[in-house]
Amino acid sequence: MRHDHLLSAGQLTREDIEAVLDRAADLAADPGAVSDRYADTLLALCFFEPSTRTKMSFDTAIQRLGGDTVDMGTVESSSVKKGESLADTVRVIEGYADGIVLRHPSEGAAKLASQFVDVPVVNAGDGAGQHPSQTLLDLYTIRERAGLDDLTIGIMGDLKYGRTVHSLAAALTNFDARMHFISPESLRLPRGVQFDLHDAGARLREHTDLDEVLGELDVLYVTRIQRERFPDENEYQQIAGEYQIDAETLERARDDLTVMHPLPRVDEIAPDVDATEHAAYFAQAHNGVPVRMALLDGLLGDGDDGGAGGGAAATDGGESR
Amino acid sequence: MRHDHLLSAGQLTREDIEAVLDRAADLAADPGAVSDRYADTLLALCFFEPSTRTKMSFDTAIQRLGGDTVDMGTVESSSVKKGESLADTVRVIEGYADGIVLRHPSEGAAKLASQFVDVPVVNAGDGAGQHPSQTLLDLYTIRERAGLDDLTIGIMGDLKYGRTVHSLAAALTNFDARMHFISPESLRLPRGVQFDLHDAGARLREHTDLDEVLGELDVLYVTRIQRERFPDENEYQQIAGEYQIDAETLERARDDLTVMHPLPRVDEIAPDVDATEHAAYFAQAHNGVPVRMALLDGLLGDGDDGGAGGGAAATDGGESR
Amino acid sequence: MRHDHLLSAGQLTREDIEAVLDRAADLAADPGAVSDRYADTLLALCFFEPSTRTKMSFDTAIQRLGGDTVDMGTVESSSVKKGESLADTVRVIEGYADGIVLRHPSEGAAKLASQFVDVPVVNAGDGAGQHPSQTLLDLYTIRERAGLDDLTIGIMGDLKYGRTVHSLAAALTNFDARMHFISPESLRLPRGVQFDLHDAGARLREHTDLDEVLGELDVLYVTRIQRERFPDENEYQQIAGEYQIDAETLERARDDLTVMHPLPRVDEIAPDVDATEHAAYFAQAHNGVPVRMALLDGLLGDGDDGGAGGGAAATDGGESR
Repeated sequence: MRHDHLLSAGQLTREDIEAVLDRAADLAADPGAVSDRYADTLLALCFFEPSTRTKMSFDTAIQRLGGDTVDMGTVESSSVKKGESLADTVRVIEGYADGIVLRHPSEGAAKLASQFVDVPVVNAGDGAGQHPSQTLLDLYTIRERAGLDDLTIGIMGDLKYGRTVHSLAAALTNFDARMHFISPESLRLPRGVQFDLHDAGARLREHTDLDEVLGELDVLYVTRIQRERFPDENEYQQIAGEYQIDAETLERARDDLTVMHPLPRVDEIAPDVDATEHAAYFAQAHNGVPVRMALLDGLLGDGDDGGAGGGAAATDGGESR
Repeated sequence: MRHDHLLSAGQLTREDIEAVLDRAADLAADPGAVSDRYADTLLALCFFEPSTRTKMSFDTAIQRLGGDTVDMGTVESSSVKKGESLADTVRVIEGYADGIVLRHPSEGAAKLASQFVDVPVVNAGDGAGQHPSQTLLDLYTIRERAGLDDLTIGIMGDLKYGRTVHSLAAALTNFDARMHFISPESLRLPRGVQFDLHDAGARLREHTDLDEVLGELDVLYVTRIQRERFPDENEYQQIAGEYQIDAETLERARDDLTVMHPLPRVDEIAPDVDATEHAAYFAQAHNGVPVRMALLDGLLGDGDDGGAGGGAAATDGGESR
Repeated sequence: MRHDHLLSAGQLTREDIEAVLDRAADLAADPGAVSDRYADTLLALCFFEPSTRTKMSFDTAIQRLGGDTVDMGTVESSSVKKGESLADTVRVIEGYADGIVLRHPSEGAAKLASQFVDVPVVNAGDGAGQHPSQTLLDLYTIRERAGLDDLTIGIMGDLKYGRTVHSLAAALTNFDARMHFISPESLRLPRGVQFDLHDAGARLREHTDLDEVLGELDVLYVTRIQRERFPDENEYQQIAGEYQIDAETLERARDDLTVMHPLPRVDEIAPDVDATEHAAYFAQAHNGVPVRMALLDGLLGDGDDGGAGGGAAATDGGESR
């Protein structure tokens, strides 16, 4: 991977993706391989919105690489609320750290930030925009469980608002996957996203009923239908109920079906699925660590090792770094 | 100590307790003894309720052991508020860390969590339930100052709601201590707790006036009487005032009386006690570090060193650890 | 520097200041020089008020020195809200860490804290009081860009409430600087501060219009005029507007004028200044790292190396450190 920043899944070619996933697999097998290189590396965690798993996962990843973090803390505990611009905040923070992981409520925030600093910026979610490291760990999990070639995947739930879904579908066009989108009418994949997928040559179909395709799927990717999308509680209960799965549902699936979910889940997947061989969602979350190690290694590394993840990020040290 | 998790003080035998205290004493004398072993160890701090000293103390302990932390942050800054279950949260977090320290408002939370993960769970307080590492540091302090054999201890203040008091009393039954419980009528030790102590062979007496026993005590353990227990402010002021001590009170005590308090204190112990030889409450808080080092060493260690604290926790690495 | 604590800029002699700045310059040039010495050092971050840059800067500094932190967290997540006194809080925390960085809303808090603990206390801002490490990084930046000898400096904005300004001016009396204070009538430098500066032999003049002195200045130090100082929004807009600078303003300045700002800024300095050679405010923030490294090295170090920053802080280890 030869990028200065990771801003969107769309910037990654098939070659980029495979390089990161290969590197992640290597690091998962031998986490200590790079420890010495990052002993003096500090990664700034700048989360302008709440997060558990993404933040802890990046925190773990840089520490597993041998580095450490400086944390901006919550917005409430920071000087952001004094009216400072994002551009100013990141320009200050680049003096403290060798890279910046940024989550922000505004779409485009990571891209904006990247234009003001010389250290690598990783987009860890920008509003309704992108969350590329989530996409990479999804791809890693799919590759590990079902393979990325000749894949038939079902993506179910809230397809209208879910940025995770849009990024994953876009990335899968690199691998010629057959995609089935399963949702209530009111939460269908937006027209614009569909057009983009068609343009990229995607093979996609839409369904309102999971059973139409369940038996064909290698992977079923479930997302949460949010209560707040429905003005009426009864309507929410009825519709959400139709897109929940349990162990009984999966008896109609192939034995080797892999069930994924970006988490947190609420009721979409019943607890009785957890103990089945289908369940991959906790392993998926755990895969965030080696995938983010590989990502950071690509962005922060000096590229000297010639490894798949060696990057070319601009990290020339200023006087205070 | 041979446990996978530390969930309650009740699970610890006299032998377990003495092993942890011995190990803590060793580590206090030579904190660097284990540094190399934990260089790659990450401890997850999952505090669903506010805490200063317990959280900082565990944070310090794992760092003094050579390891580091990943912090879940406050509930407000996490995805917990999206409705994720505790079981899901800890199953994700076990992919990031080699052990989990959990504080949670619900009694039984740590036990529940321990049933879902393969890494050691330490209960750092679960509602009205247990706080076993507090009990261990209390025992450590008592042993250091007065010895655990042939002990006469007074426990004063809010004996009804104080989980610290209940755990400590239960643990002291292992050492055949004479226990005097001093409180207002309305905050007496609950009947159930008394029965359990009697069942364990405890020698206990109740008092409403400290002066009845002050002269006999080796240790006086003071706890805070909380304003919110009393509907009437005047009643609170009057009653709380009767259970406060100052330097003058202690003139009626033995010269070698040790005064302890789990902190934070408000008015229960006047500042003029701080400078006396009786005061042990700050040292008691500081003892949390070696005691928690010993605890973590027992739970996270591989037991190869044959040391008293060598544990047998299940820490086989998943792919992302 | 031979101090146990850093409580106010006023405690620093010219010799102290120069020793810290020299040491900071050395550490900026070779950050790895001291890594081994602080491998076992923990610095407690106790921020009772929000902060981004000061907290992250101290966090970075101790990590760049090879040490690490234990963080008290926000007041909301700590037991402080249970009514614990500051004296008790810091006496507990000194058992966890080798030094304490304290920000607190009450003037004199750091001094009070220092009287209760044996580890070094660094004042990172105490209400309307002091913020000495900010003063040191300001001086470092001035020295680097313009030199501290024969300096002509303009200090503009809110001179009435800005503790940054008062400390910097006091420190500059050590270097016989010519000081021009530029502000609206209602935000002039307080009489008491002026008297103290005169007593210290300062050469100072006051102005309401920047253009009266702009052409003479080596350095222009801009501070924020806070909306909340003005009952009337229109009055604020009008007055604040007169004390904002942009690239056009600076055409009337000397080519080598250095513009500084403690940040965060709002509208005081237009973004078109950022790209000019005048702008030093981001570098100024970044200088916080080597300056705080030097400070901490002076306070935490054992002084054995004979270096300029070698301190004499009391850091004898208690049993739990």
